[in-house]
Amino acid sequence: MKKTVLFSDITIVSSHDDVKATVMENAFCVVSDDRICYVGQSKEAALEKAESLSSGDFETYDGRNKILAPTFANAHAHTPMSIFRNIADDFALQDWLFNEIIPREDRMIADDFTYGHLLTLAEMIEGGTACAANMYDGADQITLASAEAGFRLQQTAMGKTFKDGVWSADSKNVEDFIALCNEKGKGLIKPSLLVHSVYLYPGSFYADLSELAKKYEIPVSVHISETIKENEDCLSSYGCTPVEYLDQTGLLSDTTVAAHCVHLTENDMRILSERKTWVAHNASSNMKLASGFADMVGMQKAGIRLCLGTDGASSNNNQDMFIEMRLASFMAKGKTYDPTVMCASDVFHMATRNGYLACGFEDCGIIEEGMKADIQIIDYDCPQMWPLGNPVSSLVYSCGPKCVESVMIDGRFVLYKHDLTTIDFEKVKFETKKTMERLK
Amino acid sequence: MKKTVLFSDITIVSSHDDVKATVMENAFCVVSDDRICYVGQSKEAALEKAESLSSGDFETYDGRNKILAPTFANAHAHTPMSIFRNIADDFALQDWLFNEIIPREDRMIADDFTYGHLLTLAEMIEGGTACAANMYDGADQITLASAEAGFRLQQTAMGKTFKDGVWSADSKNVEDFIALCNEKGKGLIKPSLLVHSVYLYPGSFYADLSELAKKYEIPVSVHISETIKENEDCLSSYGCTPVEYLDQTGLLSDTTVAAHCVHLTENDMRILSERKTWVAHNASSNMKLASGFADMVGMQKAGIRLCLGTDGASSNNNQDMFIEMRLASFMAKGKTYDPTVMCASDVFHMATRNGYLACGFEDCGIIEEGMKADIQIIDYDCPQMWPLGNPVSSLVYSCGPKCVESVMIDGRFVLYKHDLTTIDFEKVKFETKKTMERLK
Repeated sequence: MKKTVLFSDITIVSSHDDVKATVMENAFCVVSDDRICYVGQSKEAALEKAESLSSGDFETYDGRNKILAPTFANAHAHTPMSIFRNIADDFALQDWLFNEIIPREDRMIADDFTYGHLLTLAEMIEGGTACAANMYDGADQITLASAEAGFRLQQTAMGKTFKDGVWSADSKNVEDFIALCNEKGKGLIKPSLLVHSVYLYPGSFYADLSELAKKYEIPVSVHISETIKENEDCLSSYGCTPVEYLDQTGLLSDTTVAAHCVHLTENDMRILSERKTWVAHNASSNMKLASGFADMVGMQKAGIRLCLGTDGASSNNNQDMFIEMRLASFMAKGKTYDPTVMCASDVFHMATRNGYLACGFEDCGIIEEGMKADIQIIDYDCPQMWPLGNPVSSLVYSCGPKCVESVMIDGRFVLYKHDLTTIDFEKVKFETKKTMERLK
Repeated sequence: MKKTVLFSDITIVSSHDDVKATVMENAFCVVSDDRICYVGQSKEAALEKAESLSSGDFETYDGRNKILAPTFANAHAHTPMSIFRNIADDFALQDWLFNEIIPREDRMIADDFTYGHLLTLAEMIEGGTACAANMYDGADQITLASAEAGFRLQQTAMGKTFKDGVWSADSKNVEDFIALCNEKGKGLIKPSLLVHSVYLYPGSFYADLSELAKKYEIPVSVHISETIKENEDCLSSYGCTPVEYLDQTGLLSDTTVAAHCVHLTENDMRILSERKTWVAHNASSNMKLASGFADMVGMQKAGIRLCLGTDGASSNNNQDMFIEMRLASFMAKGKTYDPTVMCASDVFHMATRNGYLACGFEDCGIIEEGMKADIQIIDYDCPQMWPLGNPVSSLVYSCGPKCVESVMIDGRFVLYKHDLTTIDFEKVKFETKKTMERLK
């Protein structure tokens, strides 16, 4: 249920489009319906706004020792993979993927997508994440489950079929999925086109996918240069890098979300920057699967638009954007031997505003009047965040899911004082455990 | 208050001295006074043991959907530095240390050590840590506070004075501190000797410190090869590496805890391995301060005894051993391009058994009959750990402080179902905030 809420006497931390993260202490924020309607330090103005918008019927949320911040947008996820969490760790990539994951994925049924997705949403919400770019099969089930849970999503449509050993574009599939998003998505779900990578389809097929994305004006979701092997194979097949190849086929635009990008050449960076393509950095996954340390500082200098993702729970093994912010900063510092790079406000901006933009939600990710009310409340009255120090540093380097008290998406509390309000976690537990055992 | 507790129908995960982590499902564990008295799968045997040890007056702790594991021993900490958390991040090391930290440290008074330490203990306990090797001034206050809180500690004695520009050994200081540990430490506090690093004292002084450590038979606590600059300066001053220099002065033994060791030569590794010196790896701190990525896999292959530490909260900025386990594994995989190295059971062993051994507590860190009852209870009935999968992987890659339900040290609950029982956190908050403001 959406209503009017006055967050009172709270510390507001937010990025903005023009300046880095700001901190406003002893502040007030009014949310009504799905929007942020007041942000400032005047109690009187906040009260007046709340009263006028609700005819006096509003909730006051006590903000003392609390931070109000934009929620995170996770720019690269494979949500149903949480059902494969911790079943095959410390494996070589090929062994992990082809012997452990794909044989299980091949036997998934409709409910597995629904409940695997909901399990991940529960973890994301408890960790302050309210939006994700999701690349996975089962788009219909995932969309319906997300809309019900009140979670914002950019979800891939398949857009292709594989028959008698040949891939072909599937317009109808995309059209149907766009219609489903419009009819059942409650304004929370946006479609994208799954273009897995340069190594999964025959070369002739990429132009078809590119046409499909253009025809329906939907973003492209793709993995790029995750491993050295991918680059070597691409060079051998096409005589160029994955970025160059995808660019030639017209798949790189300012709505494309390119995940990983661990091994880029200078020319790759120039192309991604010129195309304004979003790069979703996956620090944990790239380290855990031993793909390498992406050159975040180089990409930043090249002017590439950066955001952060967790990748699937089976290669991370969390969906925790606090860990990803921290690690993105630490990895960049360690790699460059420079502790001043990739500072707290940089990664905070990537995890919030840039993540939302990459997912296609332009009026989210910033605490400003008129923006959508996607908000998290952090309780810093706890040992791991005390004393507060710089609130931006504290959010990035010290905070974690334990400190997330409430999460609001589109003006609706989906986590209220540590309780999930839109997901029946007991049901999700029961169903996902059953799935895990069936797919053994 | 110590009593008899029967942990019932629980999943027990533990390292051992001879084999890697084991998992025992539907298990029972009985603790009486300060010891583990039963570990096994017979409900009857567990009940009988609990009854006979308590004359029937024991607590049954429901272990369904829970893991019982050894607590962590953090092998390198500077506990009072939590009062400097998040005040100066993303700074160059020299700027951070000499302009932000040391000027504040110079103005610390006795209470600051006490409450800064207690703040860190509260965070450690909530994160499943029950023991630390602590390198900091204020040893007396820290010892008294630890003993009161029921926390296990290896604490540095200063053992030296600085007068008229000259360092000299101070036997009395060491003697007094050993006496304090014996009289007031409640068996929980062990002394060590602070030998900060090769770069803080004049060359002539290291032999004196070495004699002091031998005379009182106490371990040495030292930073080694944290930065490239340290190595270069040592080579220029002494014509050898920090490891070689400390070895020449007799400061490396099988009780020495050497923190960081980011930049070691092959000969350094050979020496550390031969001396059986403990290396405390600080993955977060080394990355955040841009010191580099330590060669954990090389050290492991050289047979060096490895454990994990957080370093101080002002260069981490957490005291979370879950993060350190995860990162130690991920960093090693990323650095070597091999996802099979530094597996979950390796880092779990370092964080538990090896940490305790490095801190000098030989009968801790393993869930076996006769060992001290240092135990954590993890609640995996939550989105971030569900479904459980491999419990060792889950503890290392998915768990976090949010899932730590209870912590027992020496048979006493210091965290009971999410509540700290021995630390008055409201008082600690009040005092540390005051300190932080005074030291601005």
